[in-house]
Amino acid sequence: MPIDLSYSPETTALVEKVRTFVREVVLPIEDQHVGDIAAAGGDAIRVELHARARKAGVFAPHAPVEYGGHGLNMSDRAPVFEEAGYSLFGPTALNIAAPDEGNVHMLAHIADAAQKQQYLEPLARGEVRSAFAMTEPAPGAGSDPAALSTRAVRADGGWRISGHKWFITGADGAGFFIIFARTSGEPGDRGGATMFLTPADAPGLRVGRHISTLDKSMLGGHCEVFFDDLFVPDAGVLGEVDRGFEYAQVRLGPARMTHVMRWLGAARRGHDIAVAHVARRQGFGAKLGDLGMVQQMVADNEIDIAATRALLTRACWELDAGESAANSTSVAKTFAAEAIFRIVDRSVQMCGGLGVSDDLPLARLSREVRPFRVYDGPSEVHRWAIAKRVIGAAKRAARETESKETS
Amino acid sequence: MPIDLSYSPETTALVEKVRTFVREVVLPIEDQHVGDIAAAGGDAIRVELHARARKAGVFAPHAPVEYGGHGLNMSDRAPVFEEAGYSLFGPTALNIAAPDEGNVHMLAHIADAAQKQQYLEPLARGEVRSAFAMTEPAPGAGSDPAALSTRAVRADGGWRISGHKWFITGADGAGFFIIFARTSGEPGDRGGATMFLTPADAPGLRVGRHISTLDKSMLGGHCEVFFDDLFVPDAGVLGEVDRGFEYAQVRLGPARMTHVMRWLGAARRGHDIAVAHVARRQGFGAKLGDLGMVQQMVADNEIDIAATRALLTRACWELDAGESAANSTSVAKTFAAEAIFRIVDRSVQMCGGLGVSDDLPLARLSREVRPFRVYDGPSEVHRWAIAKRVIGAAKRAARETESKETS
Amino acid sequence: MPIDLSYSPETTALVEKVRTFVREVVLPIEDQHVGDIAAAGGDAIRVELHARARKAGVFAPHAPVEYGGHGLNMSDRAPVFEEAGYSLFGPTALNIAAPDEGNVHMLAHIADAAQKQQYLEPLARGEVRSAFAMTEPAPGAGSDPAALSTRAVRADGGWRISGHKWFITGADGAGFFIIFARTSGEPGDRGGATMFLTPADAPGLRVGRHISTLDKSMLGGHCEVFFDDLFVPDAGVLGEVDRGFEYAQVRLGPARMTHVMRWLGAARRGHDIAVAHVARRQGFGAKLGDLGMVQQMVADNEIDIAATRALLTRACWELDAGESAANSTSVAKTFAAEAIFRIVDRSVQMCGGLGVSDDLPLARLSREVRPFRVYDGPSEVHRWAIAKRVIGAAKRAARETESKETS
Amino acid sequence: MPIDLSYSPETTALVEKVRTFVREVVLPIEDQHVGDIAAAGGDAIRVELHARARKAGVFAPHAPVEYGGHGLNMSDRAPVFEEAGYSLFGPTALNIAAPDEGNVHMLAHIADAAQKQQYLEPLARGEVRSAFAMTEPAPGAGSDPAALSTRAVRADGGWRISGHKWFITGADGAGFFIIFARTSGEPGDRGGATMFLTPADAPGLRVGRHISTLDKSMLGGHCEVFFDDLFVPDAGVLGEVDRGFEYAQVRLGPARMTHVMRWLGAARRGHDIAVAHVARRQGFGAKLGDLGMVQQMVADNEIDIAATRALLTRACWELDAGESAANSTSVAKTFAAEAIFRIVDRSVQMCGGLGVSDDLPLARLSREVRPFRVYDGPSEVHRWAIAKRVIGAAKRAARETESKETS
Repeated sequence: MPIDLSYSPETTALVEKVRTFVREVVLPIEDQHVGDIAAAGGDAIRVELHARARKAGVFAPHAPVEYGGHGLNMSDRAPVFEEAGYSLFGPTALNIAAPDEGNVHMLAHIADAAQKQQYLEPLARGEVRSAFAMTEPAPGAGSDPAALSTRAVRADGGWRISGHKWFITGADGAGFFIIFARTSGEPGDRGGATMFLTPADAPGLRVGRHISTLDKSMLGGHCEVFFDDLFVPDAGVLGEVDRGFEYAQVRLGPARMTHVMRWLGAARRGHDIAVAHVARRQGFGAKLGDLGMVQQMVADNEIDIAATRALLTRACWELDAGESAANSTSVAKTFAAEAIFRIVDRSVQMCGGLGVSDDLPLARLSREVRPFRVYDGPSEVHRWAIAKRVIGAAKRAARETESKETS
Repeated sequence: MPIDLSYSPETTALVEKVRTFVREVVLPIEDQHVGDIAAAGGDAIRVELHARARKAGVFAPHAPVEYGGHGLNMSDRAPVFEEAGYSLFGPTALNIAAPDEGNVHMLAHIADAAQKQQYLEPLARGEVRSAFAMTEPAPGAGSDPAALSTRAVRADGGWRISGHKWFITGADGAGFFIIFARTSGEPGDRGGATMFLTPADAPGLRVGRHISTLDKSMLGGHCEVFFDDLFVPDAGVLGEVDRGFEYAQVRLGPARMTHVMRWLGAARRGHDIAVAHVARRQGFGAKLGDLGMVQQMVADNEIDIAATRALLTRACWELDAGESAANSTSVAKTFAAEAIFRIVDRSVQMCGGLGVSDDLPLARLSREVRPFRVYDGPSEVHRWAIAKRVIGAAKRAARETESKETS
Repeated sequence: MPIDLSYSPETTALVEKVRTFVREVVLPIEDQHVGDIAAAGGDAIRVELHARARKAGVFAPHAPVEYGGHGLNMSDRAPVFEEAGYSLFGPTALNIAAPDEGNVHMLAHIADAAQKQQYLEPLARGEVRSAFAMTEPAPGAGSDPAALSTRAVRADGGWRISGHKWFITGADGAGFFIIFARTSGEPGDRGGATMFLTPADAPGLRVGRHISTLDKSMLGGHCEVFFDDLFVPDAGVLGEVDRGFEYAQVRLGPARMTHVMRWLGAARRGHDIAVAHVARRQGFGAKLGDLGMVQQMVADNEIDIAATRALLTRACWELDAGESAANSTSVAKTFAAEAIFRIVDRSVQMCGGLGVSDDLPLARLSREVRPFRVYDGPSEVHRWAIAKRVIGAAKRAARETESKETS
Repeated sequence: MPIDLSYSPETTALVEKVRTFVREVVLPIEDQHVGDIAAAGGDAIRVELHARARKAGVFAPHAPVEYGGHGLNMSDRAPVFEEAGYSLFGPTALNIAAPDEGNVHMLAHIADAAQKQQYLEPLARGEVRSAFAMTEPAPGAGSDPAALSTRAVRADGGWRISGHKWFITGADGAGFFIIFARTSGEPGDRGGATMFLTPADAPGLRVGRHISTLDKSMLGGHCEVFFDDLFVPDAGVLGEVDRGFEYAQVRLGPARMTHVMRWLGAARRGHDIAVAHVARRQGFGAKLGDLGMVQQMVADNEIDIAATRALLTRACWELDAGESAANSTSVAKTFAAEAIFRIVDRSVQMCGGLGVSDDLPLARLSREVRPFRVYDGPSEVHRWAIAKRVIGAAKRAARETESKETS
């Protein structure tokens, strides 16, 4: 089969529908709620946006068809999610915001039938929100997940969980939690984790403060969450005991890529605003867009957009082909998080004083995209992982050559 | 005389006093008012901080001695202002925040005796705040001051001013304004501007909305200001009519440098926080600060701090020597604005999730320093000016060679 | 059809064969001729390498099947040419070095039957080399082809060409030339160019000095070429008169991409050498490859390689689909030329003193790849072209909105 | 004393004389010997240049006055050496090329009277050249000097030295060597080194091949040197036994800075050539120098030049003040080596095809400056050292806080 980068007519049509929907329906609502940008407008607007998205035929592009979704694979999600990301409220409207979208993906792959009915279906249909409780304050699981400290101990008919999580996106108002807890081993061991499903109103689960961050658009905030002897019955174990780190991989690779898709849409919006600005605004005897230093920023944005998309295409194809794609998703995430930051930063710069003000959405976008260089693995951790693979292989090759030479 | 980079014992002692004052008095107050970061705590806190600064002997280091200041030249201001900038409230405390500090500088150079008494003395003593009304919305004076559109027309015993300004820092609550208006010529002409002094409560002067921007710490905000047939008597003309562009240079070079001094202090605080974090925090089997990629960020911060300081030293010395320093202040400002941004950005990155949260001051600092790459001349305008000088000289040299060859 | 990034088994097998051939046959010959790196070993070695490549079944992957080639499209050329580029002698061995490879491509598209027999077939079979004579010294055709100054004037049964070209790759020893000359209009006009085919030994064609450049590996050098009333019969007109600029596009897009493919191979070799070095070499109590700053360079190389490949895949697919691909080839060329430079530069740095010496091939590679940021369009010209498209579209959109609003 | 950045009239006059001398005398000779750029023209030209420099009153600006030098301190050397570096032959002409210049500096500080007479005086007067033999092939002393492997063992009345050095600049033709050898401890120990002085013709000292590197202008090349039971009498011990690492610091800090001075001159020449080019050359309907992207490169060069100079001023002042300046010389060297590379690289880019050719000196300069990012400590080693100081201090502060809290 020759290389083919074209999308099916169905996908192309869906992309077009999402583009229209975002521009005509979602952006005006985002603009009305700039003051509410914290929490992406809140749950009431979310319900309204869901209804509008269903009517427009663009709801839940990623969800299994049996739950009302479009069942898109990763490759087809890319252009659709990018269009949705063009508005900060777009992913919420299509029910593809983090962490729900990644949770749908993971539950579709790992949950059993009863869990699918209880958790996946209402989530896919947009009836509840969810949270994925993994990150912990130091010295627990942060950039290094092996430091996992939250404990689940065997109890009659299930497990009792105690621990402290934070930066748990969407926790406030979530209908249920997926909890990452240690069922064996000690903090530092790269094994012994299990995932648990629990309703949010289970006794012993408490959502604490919202941690205030540069980004404000995540519905349900980034919260502290406390587990105090929380009971989860055996039916709440997701997949098998002690295989949590393995399952996390199922979620992490695709979740990294859907983050890239959405933020790429946001970056493109910033770029479009800046290009429109410099195409109209006069300065120094010319349109700003006729000045070489401005053209350089525009061109660098175009290059960063193209390269991000191209790396995304590669990683999604590997994921769809069933490969681990650990390397290509690390490469794409690292490049994209930095490129998206640069795109928005240059867009701010092109708009000068307006760019750093709230008279344009650029300042807001610049705050929203910064944390992406940190979460889903800081750039430094990804670079370390990428380099370790390559250097590790070279060390093995050197040892083989040596052992041949000495034998 | 040999090169000498040492400070006098008096300056060294003052730097030390400011350092102690900021750490012991100002930072705790800043920390109590994080929620009030908009407006740097407000005027009540300003009054309190002034009193504390006077008591500590660090008030108004830049102001003329006859008005209670220390009368420091630009070279000596550098380390003192840097220490003050270590807290976002520090410049307010010492009465050296923008735009008051630059206004003191300019009035000391240009105002007549009566104007000094009416405007400079209370400003230097911290009894009032002030504003410098130059920037206008498109198509008026922005990056290109020659586009100045606000008009002053001759009236009986004075002038009548009409126009629209914006991004006027400190306007809300200012006791008086310095207004930049066109007294001759047309927008686009590089001449014909005059500066006017007026009390804020003069009829015809109206302060409009605060323009919301990434930075929040400027007392009095960045406001729109409207002049509707505002009468300014002849006694309110600062210096001479039609020499406004020339006087603006008196203010601009030093004001660029004092911005650099203050923001360099803020960047250093960010760096110190990040260094303290990586020196304590464990990760991947080591202290974060033992990891090479983290060390690279620390070293790059140190290099950026050192280079910013070194360029500042050069430009201040030229200013003190009475040179125009147009080139060296452009070079220092452009480098510094970008270096300071990088320092804070790397500091955020080193602290990971905490870095993008309000649990540390880094996210706040990252918002505060971004606009500096835009105001006081965007980096692109400075680069254009720097290049024009060099290339213009080369063109003249080429023409001279040619004319010699052909004659 | 879904996105598909896999290669056919035939292409995969050819890639593997080229990889083996380059490592087992070409690299050892390159290593013996390091002193002859000027001129890629010379024509004698070229003939030998051709014979070995034919025997290995890897000769002329790009050439039409009827002339003994593999007839690969652009997408399939990408991995094959990259493997060939792993040795500086590899492209010569496979007969896919510049400018012959691009000339084969263009002649296959534009030449008539007689021209194909006389020029294309011997070129495709490796029996002669060729040159493409376009670039002129200032003020002629350089980065801006419209400045074309070489003239062809009508003569009995053909044209007479006079002009001065330089940086003509492969001119010394070429069997024939494709000449770009102005048949109408004046320098500065974006039209009026025609392409001519002529044997190298035609009277009035003279190859001047080799221009010494940082790169040394192009067989036949970068030469000055003089046309002094050179007669080309009508049969030597390639395509139609006055359509030269149009035809140049047929050559330029693909030629940009095959340059990227080959140099990416060279960069990968540099990277592999550096990785092998840091995997073995001890320093500061660890393997160099265990140090974070080294890991960062390795990871950045991996990211640059992946992004270059991904952008190449995109542009080649567009070219194969019959699109102009002017934008995607500009984007890919600009990114790639800079990325390839960075990759080699980091590889040099990782090897320290050895890296800047000829004890490793890295210093040589660093000289070879630098000019690619200049030829085939300097990065600045591509950025200008990329930005102009985007900003031009925004200007048109702004005008349409305005005219709607005012009508 | 206030900050003072002015030079004495004597220094200013000397700078001016060197500038004139280099432009009128040295550059024309360099241009005649482009083919001999290897070895900076050779020793015959060196002798001629010395004579011309003596006549011009610019010889040996750094050497003690008693040996015919000007006795400049580090601060005053900066502008003088920068002017000399404007030609690749300039440092040779003034007798301030590496390694002789650094050896003069060190011998003036450490040698005893007899050693001064035998070695320093003829070196300072330009009668002989010298070499500093420190670097060894792996696993010996490279970036990490503690790996020193060359051994000196006690013998009757002196020491016997055996070992293998490489990258020894100026070794071929040197009159004497300063040898760094281990007199106690084992490779890896940060102590136990001694410096020895020996005539080049001593039995047991053999200069091997020239290591071919990107740079070609160092007289005497970068050579391998072998010591085979070389006898050095006790009178040849420089300073005291086992204090070699300590003495190396005396040489390293200043030598780093004089490298920066000279290469900054070379970079400025590249910049001047590029500026002259873009000021004259037409393209795209304007002078190249009127295009924004070109102006950006010019401005960035100006900024890099200014920052390099400013950091140099700081470090030299600390050295003159008798401080170790280990940090400020590391900062200045790291920034400068990268800035100088960027300046030359942008200059190449501005000149396009000419820039990568030998029709201008830019390609040559680009090869010459690249290794400076590696020798005198690779950027990565300096960054590591800079970061370690800062992070180490933060760790100590954290421990103190902790111990106070717990006590």
